[in-house]
Amino acid sequence: MLKGKIEIHNRVSIASSSNDKSDTLDLIYTPGVAFVAKKISTDKKLAYDYTSKWNNVAIVCDGTRVLGLGDIGPEGAIPVMEGKSVLFKVLGGINAFPLCIAIKDKEEIIRFVKAIQPVFGAVNIEDIESPKVLEIVERLQKDLSIPVFHDDQHGTAIIALAGLLNALRLLHKRIDSIRVVIAGAGSAGYGIFRILKEAGCSNIVVTDSVGAIYKNRIKGMDSRYKKEIGDKTNSTNLSGSLEDVLKGTDVFIGVSGKGNIISKDMIQSMNHDPIVFALSNPDPEIMPSDALEGGARVVATGRSDFANQVNNAVVFPSILRALLDLRVNTLSEEMLVSVATAIADIVDTRHLKYDYIIPKVDDPRIIKIVTDTLKNAIQRHLERKMK
Amino acid sequence: MLKGKIEIHNRVSIASSSNDKSDTLDLIYTPGVAFVAKKISTDKKLAYDYTSKWNNVAIVCDGTRVLGLGDIGPEGAIPVMEGKSVLFKVLGGINAFPLCIAIKDKEEIIRFVKAIQPVFGAVNIEDIESPKVLEIVERLQKDLSIPVFHDDQHGTAIIALAGLLNALRLLHKRIDSIRVVIAGAGSAGYGIFRILKEAGCSNIVVTDSVGAIYKNRIKGMDSRYKKEIGDKTNSTNLSGSLEDVLKGTDVFIGVSGKGNIISKDMIQSMNHDPIVFALSNPDPEIMPSDALEGGARVVATGRSDFANQVNNAVVFPSILRALLDLRVNTLSEEMLVSVATAIADIVDTRHLKYDYIIPKVDDPRIIKIVTDTLKNAIQRHLERKMK
Repeated sequence: MLKGKIEIHNRVSIASSSNDKSDTLDLIYTPGVAFVAKKISTDKKLAYDYTSKWNNVAIVCDGTRVLGLGDIGPEGAIPVMEGKSVLFKVLGGINAFPLCIAIKDKEEIIRFVKAIQPVFGAVNIEDIESPKVLEIVERLQKDLSIPVFHDDQHGTAIIALAGLLNALRLLHKRIDSIRVVIAGAGSAGYGIFRILKEAGCSNIVVTDSVGAIYKNRIKGMDSRYKKEIGDKTNSTNLSGSLEDVLKGTDVFIGVSGKGNIISKDMIQSMNHDPIVFALSNPDPEIMPSDALEGGARVVATGRSDFANQVNNAVVFPSILRALLDLRVNTLSEEMLVSVATAIADIVDTRHLKYDYIIPKVDDPRIIKIVTDTLKNAIQRHLERKMK
Repeated sequence: MLKGKIEIHNRVSIASSSNDKSDTLDLIYTPGVAFVAKKISTDKKLAYDYTSKWNNVAIVCDGTRVLGLGDIGPEGAIPVMEGKSVLFKVLGGINAFPLCIAIKDKEEIIRFVKAIQPVFGAVNIEDIESPKVLEIVERLQKDLSIPVFHDDQHGTAIIALAGLLNALRLLHKRIDSIRVVIAGAGSAGYGIFRILKEAGCSNIVVTDSVGAIYKNRIKGMDSRYKKEIGDKTNSTNLSGSLEDVLKGTDVFIGVSGKGNIISKDMIQSMNHDPIVFALSNPDPEIMPSDALEGGARVVATGRSDFANQVNNAVVFPSILRALLDLRVNTLSEEMLVSVATAIADIVDTRHLKYDYIIPKVDDPRIIKIVTDTLKNAIQRHLERKMK
């Protein structure tokens, strides 16, 4: 039994001879530590210099929507979040602690995250059910002095857009002239619709279990986020089933959480050279072999055992590394698009293929490129604010 | 700049060849982790086997009473708690994460600690102001399924009693026939009064800034913990100042947080062979040289630069190690006395001296002795419950 994938190590050693020891203990603990403690109390920002805050990320999860398993509780979520922590360390050099919490109430979770601000440099919100989580993230981004990243929303959106940009390059289609259907209006669906809009894609229809979301739809509009989707997509107010709206579409992006909801026939009903991202895990909306048989030209899934894995792990360690290093708490849609474009560009034209549209998780170029890209995007953001 | 004393390390490595890698990632992250996550969701206790919970301790601190510095805020508390974390690791092999939190309200702190239960095997409450903290600890011990240790209360009480038992051995005095004055009615004073009672000491007077605490005192009785002290100590209802009640006393224990409040004359007014534990930091209630000149036979402080340091670090790593290993959430006064006695007994009679009454922090025998002692005490506790 592994008994956990992470552990805490000391960055200081206590001298081994018993005479030395008390001296060193004096320094790292009382009374020596009082000097540093006092200094920080006069200027909180010094915590970045004198403690591990600069490199600490809280992975906050209430266990209500873990992977495709649903509400399995905070204890069940721990191994997943420890796995994330391992990736944060290997790929971003970050100390990420899995705070799997036994509270589900929206306001309680917001208060909880506010409470842990002093000791963390950033927060990663993870596997909390939607639409609750969308409001939690919105509120926290407004109220916290440290950056808040929502992997299910922002991470998935970035890597999906990165993959899509390269698929479009391969097929010589332009993002501002394609029609996209997104199946799923949870965190991922909401994040993807927003990033696509920002990237210039104006023809989007999002579906949920009721069908196409359109302006003033009555049924199943259980949050203002769905209302926002209805207001800002589907300008011709299409109604009907996923099957109905998929006809003539260039791109299908599935983040529905449901497997096998798309048939070969439905792929055949799409526009020429269809792009199919069936991202639900573990069962994709359509198996890649079926999608290809139905005529799809580029197929991606969330799984590592097929080509073109749309894997958040490309994004979250590098973007949190950048947010920690840059110490900003803004994360605009424009920044997300910049990062997605930069990640897409890592795959250069010579290597771009139908089955290689996204860089590998451990591509050593990612960290620097994401940091530089974010730095520039923040610069632009600040300059615009100054005007 | 050290930039923090602790960091998170991985206990797993991701295979380095790119073919192997996806396999290993599959296992420690999605989709392989889903199997373990699901399993834990059916039986929460499995988190002890499949995650780092078994070895995780939360150090919870709101920064309201840090060292002798007072309310310096949660950021200022971080370096102190990281220092504790270092000691937890070196001396107890424990992963202790410093949760320095930006909430001060009693009920909020209780809710916070309840929320983090899933991912921690035990909680160490630290440097929260009294009397608020006493109620927090009492409530948490009742409501949590994991052990709650309060170092300022329990840790200080154990190590103070351990030192006192050895001082009494040296001076051939018996705990059931001495008179003790405790200066300070905060967490430490409360913890010490309780452990002394349990250890058989019936003649105790506790003083606070107003003077001796006695039954039905009106002034400054700001909590039910002070009322408890009034009810259970000072059976002859002594009133008056610290100076008044110190006369004829065998033992002085200072946990007042105030330096230089005891004079040589006051030591001279004590019973023959006085024992003086001036534990406030950084300034003890009386400097050791003055205490000795006043006639004290055994003198201890909280400082490492004098003999007989009454240092919690002897206690907290070993007792948390034992609580984690034994997975119990009871911590009775009887157990605390057992541990104190066992720690005192580590200093064998041949080595016992006026300036060596307490084992050194890094004495390698401590962990095993504390664990065995707690195990037996718990066994007795459970057997008595069964009857």
